[in-house]
Amino acid sequence: MVIAFLTVTPLGTGTPSLSSYVVDCVKAIEESNVKHTLTPMGSILEGALEDIQETVRIVHNIPFEKGVQRVSTRLVIDDRRDKDASAERKVESVQAKLGE
Amino acid sequence: MVIAFLTVTPLGTGTPSLSSYVVDCVKAIEESNVKHTLTPMGSILEGALEDIQETVRIVHNIPFEKGVQRVSTRLVIDDRRDKDASAERKVESVQAKLGE
Amino acid sequence: MVIAFLTVTPLGTGTPSLSSYVVDCVKAIEESNVKHTLTPMGSILEGALEDIQETVRIVHNIPFEKGVQRVSTRLVIDDRRDKDASAERKVESVQAKLGE
Amino acid sequence: MVIAFLTVTPLGTGTPSLSSYVVDCVKAIEESNVKHTLTPMGSILEGALEDIQETVRIVHNIPFEKGVQRVSTRLVIDDRRDKDASAERKVESVQAKLGE
Repeated sequence: MVIAFLTVTPLGTGTPSLSSYVVDCVKAIEESNVKHTLTPMGSILEGALEDIQETVRIVHNIPFEKGVQRVSTRLVIDDRRDKDASAERKVESVQAKLGE
Repeated sequence: MVIAFLTVTPLGTGTPSLSSYVVDCVKAIEESNVKHTLTPMGSILEGALEDIQETVRIVHNIPFEKGVQRVSTRLVIDDRRDKDASAERKVESVQAKLGE
Repeated sequence: MVIAFLTVTPLGTGTPSLSSYVVDCVKAIEESNVKHTLTPMGSILEGALEDIQETVRIVHNIPFEKGVQRVSTRLVIDDRRDKDASAERKVESVQAKLGE
Repeated sequence: MVIAFLTVTPLGTGTPSLSSYVVDCVKAIEESNVKHTLTPMGSILEGALEDIQETVRIVHNIPFEKGVQRVSTRLVIDDRRDKDASAERKVESVQAKLGE
């Protein structure tokens, strides 16, 4: 299981608003095998690397299906194998130390 | 006001755990002029671009002060000037459309 | 065909030098189906999205095979479908306009 | 001195071609204090962190001066302090090990 951060940005759409694209991307992620949390700067995904990559392929294609001609997609993967660390526990671990 | 996403990664530390560095970075961000939300993959910052850049300089230096020899820092800036959009409203706008 | 930018960063290695890992990653990319150009900040890849994702899986795993416990991998995909644009032509197009 | 990777992406422009923006950004970088190499996926910068941040502010603003309403800017900083390593030497070090 890895934690990842995904941003899919349609380019050249003619309007600075991207939320209609984000909505369709979020719907596709929620139908996929990976766990998802929306943030103001992208989506946090949790799952097997292959499942995340499959989700990325699907989501990356959504703006093209809506007529966009160019898409910039960014994925950051954090893969830690010495212990089982979920996205939630990463934040809790920091908050626990902050509270000390 | 811009929304940004910041990740500061110390390299070569000898251990896969980075939370002790993250704790000190979060403390420094909270003492700065910029609004901050911690996510499992980095920090969401809101503020003026110059204030964010000043915060980045301070936070980027923290691992060096703790003896680290190499730091990789990533900043993504989302700057939208046609309307006043906070990080919170970006997410609410998507969630409202998802709920329809 | 898409153009992508890949960075694979082993964490917690105990030394700020990463070139021994980069060498093994570059060897693996060169054995893959995707075109590759090394830059000081990562690798430029060109190929089909699925081939690039397969290469990312292979390269992302290399530091683990060498005993690393945590790896941070970043991929940026630039996918433009209105015309056939190679990495080389993207730079030439800018340089031609600069030279005017 | 740090090595950085900069991408400035205007959003909502109405056309998938971004090279006219890239040309103006490259001109501004070349007038700045930082060393610059253009790649197909962004600009490699070398210089003091404050000079790089000043250049980022200037370049980030260029699409707005041309009428764009939203800009996404990404900066990755690689700062290594145990030895003096230029962008050129980073690549040479890998190529030397590949050639062995």
